[in-house]
Amino acid sequence: MAFLSNSNTGYNPSAPTMPESAGPGHPYHSPPNYYAQANYGQYGYPSFPPGTHSDVIRSFQMVDKDRSGFIDETELQQALSSGYQRFSLRTIRLLMFLFKNPNDSLRIGPKEFAALWSCIGQWRVIFERYDRDRSGKIDAFELRDALYSLGFAIPASVLQILISRYDDGSGRRVELNFDSFIECGMIVKGLTEKFKEKDTRYSGSATLTYDTFMSMIIPFLVS
Amino acid sequence: MAFLSNSNTGYNPSAPTMPESAGPGHPYHSPPNYYAQANYGQYGYPSFPPGTHSDVIRSFQMVDKDRSGFIDETELQQALSSGYQRFSLRTIRLLMFLFKNPNDSLRIGPKEFAALWSCIGQWRVIFERYDRDRSGKIDAFELRDALYSLGFAIPASVLQILISRYDDGSGRRVELNFDSFIECGMIVKGLTEKFKEKDTRYSGSATLTYDTFMSMIIPFLVS
Repeated sequence: MAFLSNSNTGYNPSAPTMPESAGPGHPYHSPPNYYAQANYGQYGYPSFPPGTHSDVIRSFQMVDKDRSGFIDETELQQALSSGYQRFSLRTIRLLMFLFKNPNDSLRIGPKEFAALWSCIGQWRVIFERYDRDRSGKIDAFELRDALYSLGFAIPASVLQILISRYDDGSGRRVELNFDSFIECGMIVKGLTEKFKEKDTRYSGSATLTYDTFMSMIIPFLVS
Repeated sequence: MAFLSNSNTGYNPSAPTMPESAGPGHPYHSPPNYYAQANYGQYGYPSFPPGTHSDVIRSFQMVDKDRSGFIDETELQQALSSGYQRFSLRTIRLLMFLFKNPNDSLRIGPKEFAALWSCIGQWRVIFERYDRDRSGKIDAFELRDALYSLGFAIPASVLQILISRYDDGSGRRVELNFDSFIECGMIVKGLTEKFKEKDTRYSGSATLTYDTFMSMIIPFLVS
């Protein structure tokens, strides 16, 4: 599959972040329902959102061997490998936590998988835009610019601490590969969204009880 | 050294958590100054607080091979091994972050080491008190009681999430060894202290700006 092989080598216009690109065989107004075709639909199994790229569906189908309609963390790792790369289990756990249905246990269905795939595709485009020398890595300044372009203005001091997570102790300038970039990005995105939920007037500050504060943070420590 | 060998087998009255126990050779009013004795003192090297148990000093000295007066994370891991056990690097990093001088890089001196050693000693006593069957492990309920006895009343839902960090996926009830207990405890202690700093009136809630919120949390994710 063409779009799978070049995911690490530059911007990919056929990346499955835009449902419109599904091609003439999959018109948006009449989406293929993978689960219906595969005899899942009639029992109310969760299905993919209209317009989901067939490669996304195929990646999910490939790992959902028991046809349960849900995949766990190692299956997610495997499914994303086919479209992007093999992410570390630490990153996978964070993605799982951020994208899974809050009422569900540690597994995600087609809808969440499609959203996650699309999100990674968008972050991939950003990563490649800021990885100007195509080294496959970006540094602290590029990360700041990348996050800023996505609407996240985090303090430089915080960014420094976050980046130190990837310091190998060699004394060299810290650079992030795509896996670490996704992890960093998801931490910032996830915490920012949690904060915004509490800052309902968008005033830039929020009043939190101790219980709320602890509940907001602990899940990020667990992934 | 007697008190070193039995640290895993029950309450240890000679644990170096109380400076008064340093014995007749080390009267509190005339403490030994290890660094002064070893020709460090005259250049303003940091020294141990008065009354520090000689075993604590010895553990530090043993790993501070370059006699710099500071130890890094792997040296800290080694130093604590002699008194307690070999902690995981993840726990060590968290301890390092919580105990190091905020203005310092990733290293700790004698004063911080003595405080850390003493703190672990206190948590060891608590661990052993709640590990009623002496299995070397405590479960979620015992953890809750242990934290409560230390003054931390965290919501049950948060505790569940925190404990899931140690779920090996086997389906068995999650139990924490001393390493995980220390990690859990330090997360709760560290985050609670950060929150209290902002809740100056002890009202149970605090108003945080986005920058403050991010700065409070990110360091816990890095360790």
